[in-house]
Amino acid sequence: MKILLVGASGTLGRAIHQALSHHDVITAGRASGDLRVDITDSDSIARLFEKTGRLDAIVSAAGETHFGPLTETTAADFRIGLENKLLGQINLALTGQHYLNDGGSITLTSGIVGAHPIRHGSNTTTVNRALEGFAAAAALELARGQRINVVSPNVLQESMAAYAPYFPGFEAVPAARAALAYVRSVEGIANGQTLAVW
Amino acid sequence: MKILLVGASGTLGRAIHQALSHHDVITAGRASGDLRVDITDSDSIARLFEKTGRLDAIVSAAGETHFGPLTETTAADFRIGLENKLLGQINLALTGQHYLNDGGSITLTSGIVGAHPIRHGSNTTTVNRALEGFAAAAALELARGQRINVVSPNVLQESMAAYAPYFPGFEAVPAARAALAYVRSVEGIANGQTLAVW
Repeated sequence: MKILLVGASGTLGRAIHQALSHHDVITAGRASGDLRVDITDSDSIARLFEKTGRLDAIVSAAGETHFGPLTETTAADFRIGLENKLLGQINLALTGQHYLNDGGSITLTSGIVGAHPIRHGSNTTTVNRALEGFAAAAALELARGQRINVVSPNVLQESMAAYAPYFPGFEAVPAARAALAYVRSVEGIANGQTLAVW
Repeated sequence: MKILLVGASGTLGRAIHQALSHHDVITAGRASGDLRVDITDSDSIARLFEKTGRLDAIVSAAGETHFGPLTETTAADFRIGLENKLLGQINLALTGQHYLNDGGSITLTSGIVGAHPIRHGSNTTTVNRALEGFAAAAALELARGQRINVVSPNVLQESMAAYAPYFPGFEAVPAARAALAYVRSVEGIANGQTLAVW
C-alpha cells in the first residue's frame, strides 16, 4: 500500500513507520520528512495531498494540545488543541478522503487522556473525545468503502521521562506496541472504532 | 439562586427558563434577553460576566454546528461548530468559573447526536462528544466546590417539524422534559456527568 504518515518524526510516528515498513510510506512533518506540512494550515494540507497523489491509507500521529490548570485556562489556550490536534487531524481526513483510493483507510490519534482525565489535561480530554466522536460519525458517511479509526495510546514508555508527573500510576506502553494498532487499522477491517492501547 | 441562562430564547432555553422560574434568572442571547452575548467572541463573554456579577449557576443552551455531507465538508465548515457550540460554551465555563460562587454549577448542552450519529452530523457528533469530555475533565479541576455537567437531550418534539428528516425513528422528547435535567444539574449534586434525556 501507498501510505501517508503525518507526524512521522515523533516517538510514536517513528514506531508506526517501523511497523508499516513493509509498505510504501511517505513521511510528512512540520520540520522533517519526505514532505512538509503544517496541519493547522488548510493550504498546507491541500499542497501536501497534491504532492502525494492517490493513497491507500492516511495515518496521523500529529497534533498538540494545551496543558495547564483549568482555573487559569483561557479560550485562547483552549483553541490550541482545537486548531492543532483536533481540526488539524480532521482536516487531514476531510481533505485526504478525496485522494484516498476505494477501500482506503484513515487513522488518527487521540490518547488515553480522552477516557482518563489527568491534572491540567482538560484541553486534551476534550480534543481526544472529539476525535473519537468524529471517527464514529465519519465512518458512517465515508464513500467508496473508505474506513476511519482513531488509535488511543496510553502514555508511551519512551515519553515517561518528560510526562511522568502528569501520569501517576499509568501503565506506560512501548511505542512499538502502540504502533501495532495502526497496522490493525490500516490492514484490518475496523471502522469508526477507537483502538485503545492500554 | 442567581442564575445566568445563555440561549434563553430558543425552544430549549424557554423551557429551561420556565423550569428554573423559582430562581432569579438572568437571560442572555445573541439578539434578545436581559443581556446580549456573542459566545464566539471572548470580549463579548467577558462583558457579559462583568454585567452579571457573582452567580450561583451558569446554564447554556446555546451554540450552532455545521450540518452537511462529510464528503463535501471543509475545515472551514467544521470550524463553525468548534468555534460556536464547542469553544463558545467552553469559554462560558472558563470565564464564568471566576464569577461563580463557591459551590456554584455550570451546565452546558450537547445532544443525542454525540452518542448516536445522524446523516450529515459529523460536526455535531464531534462537538457534543468534546463537550462531554470537557465536563468530565473540568469537574476534576474546578475550584471552590464548583460543579459542571452537560445535558444531552434527544431531538425536541417542538423541533421535529424542521428536523424530522435527520432524525428517523428518534423518540423526540418535549422541551419541558429536557429542561428537568438542567434543574437536576443546578440543584442536585451531579458533577462531570452527561445527563441524557432520551
